[in-house]
Amino acid sequence: VGITSLLASAVYSAAYPLHDVSTTNPGANYTFDCLPQLLYEEWANYSVFYKYQPIGLVRKYFGEKIGLYFAWLGLYTQMLIPASLVGVIVFLYGCATVDDNIPSMEICHPRNNITMCPLCDRVCSYWRLSTACATARASHLFDNPATVFFSIFMALWAAMFMEHWKRRQMRLNYEWDLTGFEDEEDHPRAEYEFRVMQKSLSKDQNSKHKIEKLTCQDRLPAYMTNIVMMLLMIGVTFAIVFGVILYRISTKAALYMSSNPVTRSNAQLTVKTTAAIINLVVILILDEVYGAVARWLTVLEVPKTDKSFEERLIFKTFILKFVNAFTPIIYIAFFRGRLVGRPGSYLYVFESYRMEECAHGGCLMELCIQLSITMLGKQLIQNNLFEIGVPKLKKLIRYIRSKQGAFQEEERQKKLQRYETDHFLEPFAGLTPEYMEMIIQFGFVTLFVASFPLAPLFALLNNIIEIRLDAKKFVTELRRPVAARAKDIGIWYNLLRGVANVAVIINAFVISFTSDFIPRMVYQYMYSPDGSMHGFVNNTLSYFNVSHFQQGKEPMDPLYLGYPVEMCRYKDYREPPWSNTPYEISKEFWAVLAVRLAFVIVFQNVVMLMSDIVDWLIPDIPKDISLQIHKEKILLVDLFLKEEQGKARNLESRAWTEGKENCRRSSNNNNNNNSSSSSTVAQPRSGLLANSTNSL
Amino acid sequence: VGITSLLASAVYSAAYPLHDVSTTNPGANYTFDCLPQLLYEEWANYSVFYKYQPIGLVRKYFGEKIGLYFAWLGLYTQMLIPASLVGVIVFLYGCATVDDNIPSMEICHPRNNITMCPLCDRVCSYWRLSTACATARASHLFDNPATVFFSIFMALWAAMFMEHWKRRQMRLNYEWDLTGFEDEEDHPRAEYEFRVMQKSLSKDQNSKHKIEKLTCQDRLPAYMTNIVMMLLMIGVTFAIVFGVILYRISTKAALYMSSNPVTRSNAQLTVKTTAAIINLVVILILDEVYGAVARWLTVLEVPKTDKSFEERLIFKTFILKFVNAFTPIIYIAFFRGRLVGRPGSYLYVFESYRMEECAHGGCLMELCIQLSITMLGKQLIQNNLFEIGVPKLKKLIRYIRSKQGAFQEEERQKKLQRYETDHFLEPFAGLTPEYMEMIIQFGFVTLFVASFPLAPLFALLNNIIEIRLDAKKFVTELRRPVAARAKDIGIWYNLLRGVANVAVIINAFVISFTSDFIPRMVYQYMYSPDGSMHGFVNNTLSYFNVSHFQQGKEPMDPLYLGYPVEMCRYKDYREPPWSNTPYEISKEFWAVLAVRLAFVIVFQNVVMLMSDIVDWLIPDIPKDISLQIHKEKILLVDLFLKEEQGKARNLESRAWTEGKENCRRSSNNNNNNNSSSSSTVAQPRSGLLANSTNSL
Repeated sequence: VGITSLLASAVYSAAYPLHDVSTTNPGANYTFDCLPQLLYEEWANYSVFYKYQPIGLVRKYFGEKIGLYFAWLGLYTQMLIPASLVGVIVFLYGCATVDDNIPSMEICHPRNNITMCPLCDRVCSYWRLSTACATARASHLFDNPATVFFSIFMALWAAMFMEHWKRRQMRLNYEWDLTGFEDEEDHPRAEYEFRVMQKSLSKDQNSKHKIEKLTCQDRLPAYMTNIVMMLLMIGVTFAIVFGVILYRISTKAALYMSSNPVTRSNAQLTVKTTAAIINLVVILILDEVYGAVARWLTVLEVPKTDKSFEERLIFKTFILKFVNAFTPIIYIAFFRGRLVGRPGSYLYVFESYRMEECAHGGCLMELCIQLSITMLGKQLIQNNLFEIGVPKLKKLIRYIRSKQGAFQEEERQKKLQRYETDHFLEPFAGLTPEYMEMIIQFGFVTLFVASFPLAPLFALLNNIIEIRLDAKKFVTELRRPVAARAKDIGIWYNLLRGVANVAVIINAFVISFTSDFIPRMVYQYMYSPDGSMHGFVNNTLSYFNVSHFQQGKEPMDPLYLGYPVEMCRYKDYREPPWSNTPYEISKEFWAVLAVRLAFVIVFQNVVMLMSDIVDWLIPDIPKDISLQIHKEKILLVDLFLKEEQGKARNLESRAWTEGKENCRRSSNNNNNNNSSSSSTVAQPRSGLLANSTNSL
Repeated sequence: VGITSLLASAVYSAAYPLHDVSTTNPGANYTFDCLPQLLYEEWANYSVFYKYQPIGLVRKYFGEKIGLYFAWLGLYTQMLIPASLVGVIVFLYGCATVDDNIPSMEICHPRNNITMCPLCDRVCSYWRLSTACATARASHLFDNPATVFFSIFMALWAAMFMEHWKRRQMRLNYEWDLTGFEDEEDHPRAEYEFRVMQKSLSKDQNSKHKIEKLTCQDRLPAYMTNIVMMLLMIGVTFAIVFGVILYRISTKAALYMSSNPVTRSNAQLTVKTTAAIINLVVILILDEVYGAVARWLTVLEVPKTDKSFEERLIFKTFILKFVNAFTPIIYIAFFRGRLVGRPGSYLYVFESYRMEECAHGGCLMELCIQLSITMLGKQLIQNNLFEIGVPKLKKLIRYIRSKQGAFQEEERQKKLQRYETDHFLEPFAGLTPEYMEMIIQFGFVTLFVASFPLAPLFALLNNIIEIRLDAKKFVTELRRPVAARAKDIGIWYNLLRGVANVAVIINAFVISFTSDFIPRMVYQYMYSPDGSMHGFVNNTLSYFNVSHFQQGKEPMDPLYLGYPVEMCRYKDYREPPWSNTPYEISKEFWAVLAVRLAFVIVFQNVVMLMSDIVDWLIPDIPKDISLQIHKEKILLVDLFLKEEQGKARNLESRAWTEGKENCRRSSNNNNNNNSSSSSTVAQPRSGLLANSTNSL
């Protein structure tokens, strides 16, 4: 408590271990002193990006906890290589087959003269389907059968990654002598003890009973605040996403009404770009806000130990940041274009704005654009710019401020002491932001991978830089963190597992609902007259009789295409105007829906089964390590038995010469050797002792 | 190897530990000698069925492995109490609401005169729906909304059971001093070493390289045989189920054609009863056959260790017996009544037999009957009759045979020695059959619980007897097994987990596909004119114009009901004869199917999520045990440090008086005390030592 309370009462401004740089003697012989030098050369250096990290050295200098982070990051990056390779192949397959794709061929065919219903009320007019040729071709890149294969592959990849990490962790545990290490019970946090003291003081007048801990009842207000605030924050995210939708709808409507033809023709592009940028900016800002809110909420809860504090904080931050990053994407994947109504009875927001539709290629294309913008934007701006720029800036500010201080002249004259140079560095704020960044990225790589097979590649490129960037930051930008022991990556593993599980079901829904995979299959095997895809486009378009437009909603320029239009087409499965139940949902809609849902069930269960099999096939402990541990144990038991026997014999013989004072001891030893309730036993590895010396 | 090889070469006929019964002195003071007496009174006795088992005594007498089995069985039985209570309540709810059930009221209403299509070709005629009143009412007992609740409850119950078992196991581990115990490496089996020797002999002439193990290639033929045989066995099961179906169809057809009116009216009942009995007998016979086949296949594989042998054997037996027990049930639940075609174009097997339909109440009723017959039959005949009867019989035979031997006279005269009386007992054949029986029962309790809420009750009643029966068997009928250590129930836990997971998806399918729950919901919220269930029955029946019967398939007695029939009805969602596409699958069919599939997805994911939450909320190690372990560890570390310090001081002081011979040792001790790479460390519990003394 000593240094902590001195820090708290501002006697000291900071306490940190010093970096071990012996600047006077940058040595040829790599002793412990020159470790940072070595780390700087072999690790925190972009030119060695293709090499494995010297994890042993990292652990030696920063401790096991940080060592595990970098080991995990290294394995993740390494595992991304096959994933991005397969992703690129899938993308190239899409590129190669785009010309053989019958639906987009049909759309692009010059003789295709399907007249589509207007995309907005009054100001828009009818349009030809062939003008959607480009988007139809582009969406084939991300919406082809290889995507299904790829999302199964990525689910298995995630399971494989988990398994490999377990093995790697086990190996590191063995190499770093942690097999016997167990987390010691943490001491209660100062805030917690303060609250308990407060409580016992307030109660003391009434009862003599000593209160030793906070009960659920004491924490109830904090819990309630937590739940309310979390729901509120999630509500804010939803509201903002809805706000961006409104912005998109209203701006589009406004731009379409403009008299300037250039503005009108660029409306779509303008709206999409600005909306995506707004989304990105909002995500970036909210990320910071949510980080602060989560910390505040966790402080309110007064968790007992540091470990519990950290876990609660991580859990809350994770939920908020995840919701923040993925809500716009989930909206586009599963809701956009589904709640539009139909020509003649569109769905309106605030009475005047029609809900937005997807472009003809389906929402998958837009999902893909949104995903890439969010992922790249987050990575470039948040991770790299913020991570490099902000610490540098802070360092500069701290340096300038200290210069303006009184000792400025003195300091400049004498050489700075190590603790002074280190003071200019950023304090170490824990590994949470680093892990959080990576787990959100893992989300981008696995959750919607069905719609964006290039995600692993982007993640890989980012991570190759990220490793060295983090390394540089730890070696040169941050004060040296206090080394901490850890056996595993803790709650992060569970979060990773959770993301991987959610990914299976989300990918199932993306394939069956967002992409056109299932409608195409259904058409080919149930409706197609010749078993081919010819006629698919026509099949997905319903008819609308233009005389059924509501008053005041019909296009102002009905002859825009140069001929009078009687029937226009729209993308939906509805009965034609000439049926008994015009514009009702058709039988085909239900058939497609049933197949879509069946696909989800089959996909989810097959992939989960396959993941379980992967989990079961790959043993958690590498064979050589388990053999080694077993051997060591046998050796040690042998040694121990021999030693005990030797001791006993030794003591016995001494007892003869020395007298009878040792008798008791010797018989004790014998006892130990024989009875199974003995309590002093050899243990192969030294974790426990090290642990106990730590805590005592 | 000694006694094993002597046994193998028939020098000895058997080797077993003796039962500890001191018949001469059945004592007042319960020493170890009288343990069986105590066990017999307090455990292997039906009159104490309401008491907890004395697991500590069981472990003391039979060893940890058998102790764990009875602890597990006890917990399972205990957990069945709430499950069967809720099950009975659900069943009673069904009984109480049967009169308010609108669909069955409509069917039973006297003014209801819906004419149904004939149930078989030619000999059957039209029938009135109101004659199905009784089955409609009965099926409500098992097909009501409470069932949905109950299957969610049972899924959570299974998760809870798993968690509780983990905790109980942990507690027993602690109490039985097993926390530090780890499975020692097994010695290779004799068969394995023989095979290796054979192989190295055959290869030795060619190469000098010593072969130490069997490779995958050596085992390939065995693996192939395994796969082929397993598939063949599963194929046999399917074939037999199909055979029973054929028996049912053909016998029914034959009986209907009979000229005897009594035979005809009892046809349905006769066929059902005989078919169910045939099914049961086949299951019982195949169970024995499959046990033998699985053992033979595992011997073929030549597994390396006894543990591996056991696991492979269990896995194979489990698959075969599970398939055997559940194939007929799965057929009834998911396939029966679905592949019948429609009037005018029925599906025929072998050109002449129509596929069987379910009674009007849906297949749930039949599923329920099949389930109860199989479950009760298996439990009564296989478990209890076989388990009590066969060992008694074998004992008798062995006794009689030995009487006929030469020493018969001599033996009768002198008092039998303990090893002789024990020789008349059945040898202990492992716990596999006991566990297998229970896991199949667990399957009956969880897998189809949506259709049979009384299953837990039956299981509970069986298990209350089963515990005492097994106890009796172990104490009096079997030779005393060699005590074995075990930390957990091994592969059985994984199998239980697997069954519990499969149960979720199967129950989802039973509720949505076998029961009428979803069609009722869809009718109520999508089609019902007044939002009530009135008209549901009418809605589920399609129309058929009797003039569309195929030539020679129309009923011989069309005026059976007393009036000419123009339209008859059948249960299916198809277009009426007067639509544009007569007898095509209707839109409603697809809508219902989509809702059914959506329900499966929602149910599966919600239940899995809730199970995960249960898993996460209940800690694996009971709080008091983990505290206790932690305290002991701290105490021991303290003790160890003190002892080391004391030793060092002791030795130092002795060194002064004795001379310098002890210097080296003392400094060694100091070293151990300080450096973290010391290898001799205290460990709180003695498992390891006990283990090592066991294996050395």
